[in-house]
Amino acid sequence: MRGLFITFEGGDGSGKSTQSALLVEWLEQQGRTVVTTREPGGTELGEELREIVLHSRGHITPKSEALIYAADRAHHIATKVRPAIDCGDIVVQDRYLDSSVAYQGVARGLGAKEVRDVSLWATDGLLPDLTILLDLDESVGRDRMSSRTKYDRLEAEEREFHATVRAAYLDLAAAEPGRFLVIDATEEVPEIAANIRDRVAALLG
Amino acid sequence: MRGLFITFEGGDGSGKSTQSALLVEWLEQQGRTVVTTREPGGTELGEELREIVLHSRGHITPKSEALIYAADRAHHIATKVRPAIDCGDIVVQDRYLDSSVAYQGVARGLGAKEVRDVSLWATDGLLPDLTILLDLDESVGRDRMSSRTKYDRLEAEEREFHATVRAAYLDLAAAEPGRFLVIDATEEVPEIAANIRDRVAALLG
Repeated sequence: MRGLFITFEGGDGSGKSTQSALLVEWLEQQGRTVVTTREPGGTELGEELREIVLHSRGHITPKSEALIYAADRAHHIATKVRPAIDCGDIVVQDRYLDSSVAYQGVARGLGAKEVRDVSLWATDGLLPDLTILLDLDESVGRDRMSSRTKYDRLEAEEREFHATVRAAYLDLAAAEPGRFLVIDATEEVPEIAANIRDRVAALLG
Repeated sequence: MRGLFITFEGGDGSGKSTQSALLVEWLEQQGRTVVTTREPGGTELGEELREIVLHSRGHITPKSEALIYAADRAHHIATKVRPAIDCGDIVVQDRYLDSSVAYQGVARGLGAKEVRDVSLWATDGLLPDLTILLDLDESVGRDRMSSRTKYDRLEAEEREFHATVRAAYLDLAAAEPGRFLVIDATEEVPEIAANIRDRVAALLG
């Protein structure tokens, strides 16, 4: 059996964690070995970089931010994700290069192509087999998060920033319809989960 | 008066710190405001990244290493170096993009052009007005360092690695003779310092 690389993308509060957990549960019921991971983070080095980029109190320039994400990604893909896929495992990952393109490339204005190129250099060109985009109006996502006590640096950005991120994600999905599954994140949880399972089952088929 | 950006490059033990200090002393005697800085490091964020990249006990993949240096560089140039140059100060810096090209691009095999391109993207294309390369046979450099108690991650690399770095530096200098001043680091300290002063004086015009 060949491995698979599945990524979840979407704004804050769009339900990535819930849907990721339901997908992993189902995959394990099918007898598959699943590696769940995330970016930034996912390795010891990555957690150190995650701490800097999300929780540093000082200002970080946009290009530096983008390059820290790319550094995390390079190490994470080489040491954890590729080895798992090569062994036939299924990697289910919270955020990948589409996050960098949407947040840093488009919303921070660094250029979608430039940021994508840095990520592809960092990962020797690895693209997911499937990217699940949980699309949600940014104001709904913010309301869902209101019970959390603290926002990290990106979560604390303004509403307009998150609206730009949403539009960027939809553009990315439109440009690669074969890789993306776009889901209306206001649908009911079981309905979304079934939708995702159907698409993954077809890939496993 | 316009500012200047002067970088020192060279292997371990080549005398960068000594010569940098002598140059700064002389520049200040000329009434110039000098900012001394270094990469990695030079900013609060940079020192956190320096700690990770030079002193992390775990393995760091080569591309991740190169991207951490680039992230440090992006922040350092945007927040410290460019503002100083724009104010007419002289920035004297220990290591810059030529280090990344020689160490990561050539010695680690990531590609000189690719690593240089990442650095130029990170810094919006900033090149030094003058780069002083203190050229030294790597075995001499190692002997000079023998009294130090601990090597950092890069210092601990094998002899062949450092020979490759030296050759890469010389290639870079040959490709940009207008930017580089190549100095035989086995010459006497005062002689080298005078050599450097002459070149900087010409730039100050």
